[in-house]
Amino acid sequence: MGVSGDAKMKIDKGDSGYVLEDVPHLSDYLSDLTTYPNPLQINPAYSVVRQYFVNEGDTVTQKIVVHKDSPRGAHLRRAGPRQKVYFDSDEVHACIVTCGGLCPGLNTVIREIVCGLYHMYGVNKVLGIDGGYSGFYSRNTVDLTPRVVNDIHKRGGTIIGTSRGGHDTSKIVDSIHDRGINQVYIIGGDGTQKGASVIYEEVRRRGLKASVIGIPKTIDNDIPVIDRSFGFDTAVEEAQRAINAAHVEAESIENGIGVVKLMGRYSGFIAMYATLASRDVDCCLIPESPFYLEGRGGLFEYIEKRLKENGHMVIVIAEGAGQDLLSESLQSVNQQDASGNKLLNDVGLWICQRIKDHFGRQHKMSINLKYIDPTYMIRAIPSNAADNVYCTLLAQSAVHGAMAGFTGFVVGPVNGRHSYIPFNHITEKQNNVVITDRMWARLLSSTNQPSFMNPKDVSEVQKEEQPPTQLLEGENCKDSSF
Amino acid sequence: MGVSGDAKMKIDKGDSGYVLEDVPHLSDYLSDLTTYPNPLQINPAYSVVRQYFVNEGDTVTQKIVVHKDSPRGAHLRRAGPRQKVYFDSDEVHACIVTCGGLCPGLNTVIREIVCGLYHMYGVNKVLGIDGGYSGFYSRNTVDLTPRVVNDIHKRGGTIIGTSRGGHDTSKIVDSIHDRGINQVYIIGGDGTQKGASVIYEEVRRRGLKASVIGIPKTIDNDIPVIDRSFGFDTAVEEAQRAINAAHVEAESIENGIGVVKLMGRYSGFIAMYATLASRDVDCCLIPESPFYLEGRGGLFEYIEKRLKENGHMVIVIAEGAGQDLLSESLQSVNQQDASGNKLLNDVGLWICQRIKDHFGRQHKMSINLKYIDPTYMIRAIPSNAADNVYCTLLAQSAVHGAMAGFTGFVVGPVNGRHSYIPFNHITEKQNNVVITDRMWARLLSSTNQPSFMNPKDVSEVQKEEQPPTQLLEGENCKDSSF
Amino acid sequence: MGVSGDAKMKIDKGDSGYVLEDVPHLSDYLSDLTTYPNPLQINPAYSVVRQYFVNEGDTVTQKIVVHKDSPRGAHLRRAGPRQKVYFDSDEVHACIVTCGGLCPGLNTVIREIVCGLYHMYGVNKVLGIDGGYSGFYSRNTVDLTPRVVNDIHKRGGTIIGTSRGGHDTSKIVDSIHDRGINQVYIIGGDGTQKGASVIYEEVRRRGLKASVIGIPKTIDNDIPVIDRSFGFDTAVEEAQRAINAAHVEAESIENGIGVVKLMGRYSGFIAMYATLASRDVDCCLIPESPFYLEGRGGLFEYIEKRLKENGHMVIVIAEGAGQDLLSESLQSVNQQDASGNKLLNDVGLWICQRIKDHFGRQHKMSINLKYIDPTYMIRAIPSNAADNVYCTLLAQSAVHGAMAGFTGFVVGPVNGRHSYIPFNHITEKQNNVVITDRMWARLLSSTNQPSFMNPKDVSEVQKEEQPPTQLLEGENCKDSSF
Amino acid sequence: MGVSGDAKMKIDKGDSGYVLEDVPHLSDYLSDLTTYPNPLQINPAYSVVRQYFVNEGDTVTQKIVVHKDSPRGAHLRRAGPRQKVYFDSDEVHACIVTCGGLCPGLNTVIREIVCGLYHMYGVNKVLGIDGGYSGFYSRNTVDLTPRVVNDIHKRGGTIIGTSRGGHDTSKIVDSIHDRGINQVYIIGGDGTQKGASVIYEEVRRRGLKASVIGIPKTIDNDIPVIDRSFGFDTAVEEAQRAINAAHVEAESIENGIGVVKLMGRYSGFIAMYATLASRDVDCCLIPESPFYLEGRGGLFEYIEKRLKENGHMVIVIAEGAGQDLLSESLQSVNQQDASGNKLLNDVGLWICQRIKDHFGRQHKMSINLKYIDPTYMIRAIPSNAADNVYCTLLAQSAVHGAMAGFTGFVVGPVNGRHSYIPFNHITEKQNNVVITDRMWARLLSSTNQPSFMNPKDVSEVQKEEQPPTQLLEGENCKDSSF
Repeated sequence: MGVSGDAKMKIDKGDSGYVLEDVPHLSDYLSDLTTYPNPLQINPAYSVVRQYFVNEGDTVTQKIVVHKDSPRGAHLRRAGPRQKVYFDSDEVHACIVTCGGLCPGLNTVIREIVCGLYHMYGVNKVLGIDGGYSGFYSRNTVDLTPRVVNDIHKRGGTIIGTSRGGHDTSKIVDSIHDRGINQVYIIGGDGTQKGASVIYEEVRRRGLKASVIGIPKTIDNDIPVIDRSFGFDTAVEEAQRAINAAHVEAESIENGIGVVKLMGRYSGFIAMYATLASRDVDCCLIPESPFYLEGRGGLFEYIEKRLKENGHMVIVIAEGAGQDLLSESLQSVNQQDASGNKLLNDVGLWICQRIKDHFGRQHKMSINLKYIDPTYMIRAIPSNAADNVYCTLLAQSAVHGAMAGFTGFVVGPVNGRHSYIPFNHITEKQNNVVITDRMWARLLSSTNQPSFMNPKDVSEVQKEEQPPTQLLEGENCKDSSF
Repeated sequence: MGVSGDAKMKIDKGDSGYVLEDVPHLSDYLSDLTTYPNPLQINPAYSVVRQYFVNEGDTVTQKIVVHKDSPRGAHLRRAGPRQKVYFDSDEVHACIVTCGGLCPGLNTVIREIVCGLYHMYGVNKVLGIDGGYSGFYSRNTVDLTPRVVNDIHKRGGTIIGTSRGGHDTSKIVDSIHDRGINQVYIIGGDGTQKGASVIYEEVRRRGLKASVIGIPKTIDNDIPVIDRSFGFDTAVEEAQRAINAAHVEAESIENGIGVVKLMGRYSGFIAMYATLASRDVDCCLIPESPFYLEGRGGLFEYIEKRLKENGHMVIVIAEGAGQDLLSESLQSVNQQDASGNKLLNDVGLWICQRIKDHFGRQHKMSINLKYIDPTYMIRAIPSNAADNVYCTLLAQSAVHGAMAGFTGFVVGPVNGRHSYIPFNHITEKQNNVVITDRMWARLLSSTNQPSFMNPKDVSEVQKEEQPPTQLLEGENCKDSSF
Repeated sequence: MGVSGDAKMKIDKGDSGYVLEDVPHLSDYLSDLTTYPNPLQINPAYSVVRQYFVNEGDTVTQKIVVHKDSPRGAHLRRAGPRQKVYFDSDEVHACIVTCGGLCPGLNTVIREIVCGLYHMYGVNKVLGIDGGYSGFYSRNTVDLTPRVVNDIHKRGGTIIGTSRGGHDTSKIVDSIHDRGINQVYIIGGDGTQKGASVIYEEVRRRGLKASVIGIPKTIDNDIPVIDRSFGFDTAVEEAQRAINAAHVEAESIENGIGVVKLMGRYSGFIAMYATLASRDVDCCLIPESPFYLEGRGGLFEYIEKRLKENGHMVIVIAEGAGQDLLSESLQSVNQQDASGNKLLNDVGLWICQRIKDHFGRQHKMSINLKYIDPTYMIRAIPSNAADNVYCTLLAQSAVHGAMAGFTGFVVGPVNGRHSYIPFNHITEKQNNVVITDRMWARLLSSTNQPSFMNPKDVSEVQKEEQPPTQLLEGENCKDSSF
Repeated sequence: MGVSGDAKMKIDKGDSGYVLEDVPHLSDYLSDLTTYPNPLQINPAYSVVRQYFVNEGDTVTQKIVVHKDSPRGAHLRRAGPRQKVYFDSDEVHACIVTCGGLCPGLNTVIREIVCGLYHMYGVNKVLGIDGGYSGFYSRNTVDLTPRVVNDIHKRGGTIIGTSRGGHDTSKIVDSIHDRGINQVYIIGGDGTQKGASVIYEEVRRRGLKASVIGIPKTIDNDIPVIDRSFGFDTAVEEAQRAINAAHVEAESIENGIGVVKLMGRYSGFIAMYATLASRDVDCCLIPESPFYLEGRGGLFEYIEKRLKENGHMVIVIAEGAGQDLLSESLQSVNQQDASGNKLLNDVGLWICQRIKDHFGRQHKMSINLKYIDPTYMIRAIPSNAADNVYCTLLAQSAVHGAMAGFTGFVVGPVNGRHSYIPFNHITEKQNNVVITDRMWARLLSSTNQPSFMNPKDVSEVQKEEQPPTQLLEGENCKDSSF
């Protein structure tokens, strides 16, 4: 037992199968770093706290459902303030960057990093990088002070702008170095965090005293390990409006079909939770659950059955559902006119067209289909109260970690406790809806939709996913990740 | 002076240019009708009212802005309860039908007709025709009682279903006759009211004692004469969400363009008022104001200019805007693949594609366009408080008119007073945004968009629309039709 | 015929009983004023308008319901831009002050005065007086530019602060003079407008070239002549939340009573419209309709009846209702402890106490009463879309009037057209719910509450209010003042 | 090691300090019970699930933050469906009762118990007990079917009514016995669950085959062990409206103070989270944190300071805060007039009065205080999406537990997994905000309010609460209990 590890992951093992998957620290590659007493010790708000600082040994267990004789399993380092910090307040020069699509809560995270650094650690040099990674090469930056960010949590979007791509590790690290930045807060999804991981490697390779902290942002909730991502709760709430509207439209007309497209390129969490919360949905299609249109047990058959039984129906489809069917469809059509067909890359428009074609051409049943795509109306709203509190804790945990000298990590709640998580944990796989798990069964039971599987498929899926141990821990076994 | 008129319109003239454009009455073609004292006379709620009944001679002036020496002009008959009614309470057998697309307030109107008939006149036979005009030929009807309709105003849609078309005058009047219906409340738009007018003619031709009452429904506010239509206020309010979202999306990214499509096939009122209410819109395109894309003074030039000045912009487009450009576009493309191109019939998808193509292909400027179509999310919500009160008055006025023996009319507020309006007044023309009027100038001034007119056009338009008189009364001169 | 008038009101009479009640003009007391062409003539947004300028002779009729042989009656001067203006753009130095309680839309009005002056007339000197009338004596003022006010319409409250009272005519006019202000926009209620009227008189007495413009603000809608006041629509909408909550609370418990207090010190418009819009209210109490608690036909009897019939009930009470009963009550209690009893000055707390006492002490019926006072939650929200458009037109009309040299007037919509109204029209009486009018009958009919009048009272009221003419024009005969 | 236990708690111990705190089972006191295969095995929705049934040995760990060498600590039995059930579907006769105050989500829980029993287990005899515990003695019950409950989750309140008190164990168990009820679902708070516990004891004593299941309901989140209670999330969200309004009111006037009273008789969770989510609050007062008004470090001093610095402030006060001060105050006043003073039992009205008195009488500073009590507006709204999903899982877990023969337990999420918890765990203590914990420090840091403690107090509090071990696990150490 004892510590073993490399740049990527530090492992520490203990009795009864206890494993700690630790995060890097500046002192791993820099020696003789000065430490300072944590200024929170003299902060009036914190001085009443019994034991404000996280213990050296505090770790967060990843396993909640256990047996009497289970091994203790994997743990993560607990987030929170440490007795000693590795930066003097005046020395800190932080920057914040937001990448990728909009997500409710971005502004709250920005606000709370700025206010956390200022109010807890007396830091007042925080720079907003403008417009995503590519902003590192630009002159335009925004000075972020508590005054500037005071009201931004009440607005959607991100005040420092965002963009996709534009990542050039070497130029970014040059920019970090040239500007004297020593804390880099990177807010973004999967791809952005891969970029952050590479930036951290390069910063470490160059021996810079700079912490690189990832703050996972994904409205789709597709980042693993953490309980849920910020903005997800707000998104599921806001999706209810679109589902309600689809339901009203469908109900008011004969053979009315309401189709709602929701976010979720690779994971159907928003579609699944929005469906469970609403109770008005008759069919929920997600990327994880393959489906087919024609024939016995197919979607068209189910639609026909529901319309005959009930006179109307509501379908929720995640943007990444049915990609195989869609690409098949697109290959078969004339490629000459790009602009029209390009639209059919949108699974919502595509499925509406297919349903209309089916019932229009091959069938005697006349349907009335209404399509709603609320994506941008959801992404652009301010975060709700639950997400505001979440973002506050997330930002403060990130700040505490950076001040304590940790680097190369993302922060997030694990089983209800904020933790520091090595980059590779969240970039190497994805959080998906496990369709052989109970939450998906709940959904099927609430919608009464077919599973789109034949019994042979089922047993294969079950075999394939069967883990060696008896104790099953699907990602969404979390009964209340939300 | 004196009454002159035919089935279509009864005209009564008075001094100083006073004209009354009256509505038909059952007694115009039926003689020896029995009248009854209005039961409101013994209703405890009404007994305290000083002079509850509308005077025989009460008329509503259509002209508000006048000169010292103006002629008095056209008037309408004032809505409201009359001293005498032409139906005994037990004799009344009413039916309600809703036609066309959804509109906030449909359920409130239904509720208030049912409750108005019941509570004010003691009528308890009200039938809901299921699913629009075609429901007249079907067995399925819904008995509408105060209990059944009690909470429906809190829900969007229409509880009796709706549909488009399906109008067969003769079969409908047969159904009215066979069922013994003697008050027909028809809720629908332009086309539906034309149908109602024909039904009235046929009922009159057959000499049936049945009142045919039109209740104008158009979320677009495109029905003339009346101040505004129900649901319009709710729609403009709800449209703010979409515009806000488009603004947040556009603001958060370099060269962000947010495009919002709003309802308005022939009239741009929703787009215009939503733009005026929001203040975040940079360009509003409506059917009444032709525009062009390319070249000097065109849309692309303006987009480029706004993005350079401001970094982002928001465009609101009514569904009926730019139809000439759109049909031109569609003719030029390969017609082989119908399903993709069909989507481009949607002006929102089409304009987004054109903007992307322009900046993508012909240009070095990279843009980020986000498209929002909130149509069904707007149509399907319940009516707001203002529309609820409006719908209540509308329904009660309709009921009073029917009970008083009027027929062949629509009901609606004119200069703030509910009036009875002959069918032809609202079916012969359309309410449009007058683009040479002040309200549109206000809009142009608030968005700073180009007028898409060259000076020559302007003078032509002005000449063409110039009326003979000095006193101008454009439909939307109403400063606060809303 | 011809003009006659004094400082207070200019009257112009015409044929058939036409009367124009005109507003003062700077040229009434200053001679040799220079005029300038209206800069809108070269404004690109306005240049397309057919006839942008209001005609000299345009007036707005106050009477809508007329008879064939009615006299034409009173008219007001139409608001809007004039061909000639009495201020050079560079010469204008405007100030804005907000007085009294909060009302949704205050910030929109401020925004649109600033933007209207800037964009339409090129004026860039606009001062915000801080904190109501008393701000005139203070050094703190805010420079109001289009940039400063750009987003304020999305926030509740007033960015320039407000206060009650603090009016000292002579000091205010000194301040106007000393600062070189020549357009004074005063936003406030009844009392504030009385103050504005006196300021105008003093400005005129001193011979200053300064326009004094009143912008009527009253969430209660208690200002006469105008169709409705800004913020009222938003308030009625927001009041629905409180009524819904009261209904849910009442329904969920045996003998549940939900009591909601709404604004309305002297006029019950908010309570009346909120009740009509909601349909969940069983009793609406307003200042205009006296009521009594005990005995036959009293409130307690009605409550008992409703609870027995229906198991629960909802009461809406305007803050000014039952003041006579309340002061009687207070006189009878021990005056020693001020602080507890002071609370009972609040009619909501008082009536709840009385109901509880009645059913607790004198009765065997056990009730569950829940009290909701949403006043501040209503006042503080931003204006809705309808009020935003209203405020825009209001502000622009005010600006056009000031630029055209009118002074000593308030602006507001009359029968749907914005008009200039002499101060005395709105300060000399109040807009009240006429309880012998149809709108109140509608309310009684929808709630089924008793009228709290005995037949003798009714006939007295009717006699007392009976006007000499046959044609009745109660203020709230306006069927859709909202 | 092995099982030990009594009626109250069954304890099972394992290696490394593993402890299972188990719940009772019908077989603990009834022998020869028949078991049946779980009908979910042939349910199409569930047949695709890999391993749907919870393992015999699955337990949920209560400890998340651990050290390498920590003992494993206490565990609970995992909720979920079991391979075998102890009731035949036709045999089940369930009843549901709701007790205490309203809470968002009550209707969703009712809906999901009914639908869960029906769709998962084929049970169709479910009775709604009308109006709380006392409904057991009444004839009025409601048959609850999936059709009846279909839309109720969209409404606030509880469709089966509620009441406080009325608990008579013997009569309730008689009623259960007489009606042949064998599953009793009791939804209510602390006191209600104590009652449920006693009902369970009596059912066991009489040897009835009837499961008694508690479903913890507390909008205040004051029930221990579980992560959060349903409705809490919705309540915190809705509280934002009131805080926003208070902030706008305070900001718009000189020395404006907005006071908002929120729920929380014994625990300040709603006040704390609403404050953290809002960022507009300057002072948050909760029952757990004593405060004082006068003198150095007191509330009045802080108010004066904030007003001088910032011109306005917002105070949030939980209904149970400052009870000691309040009862002191009330004792000192004249007791003669009950009705006025009774109002001062309301801490919100009381503190407003004290602040006004202080600044009015003793001081030269004139303040403007606005008080908002949104309690009933919060309690009565429908649950949001997050609470809807929560309630669904809660209800389904309860149903699975009952069918599996467990009894005498409450259900709730513990560290994100639904668990079965012995009654005594949640009735013997309360969930409180630990004011020496980090979450409260975060709050103090965000508001900048004084801790109302002097250094001596602090050290005493710290000493007193200091546990023997190094590892601290305050209830609200949960970083994201929400």
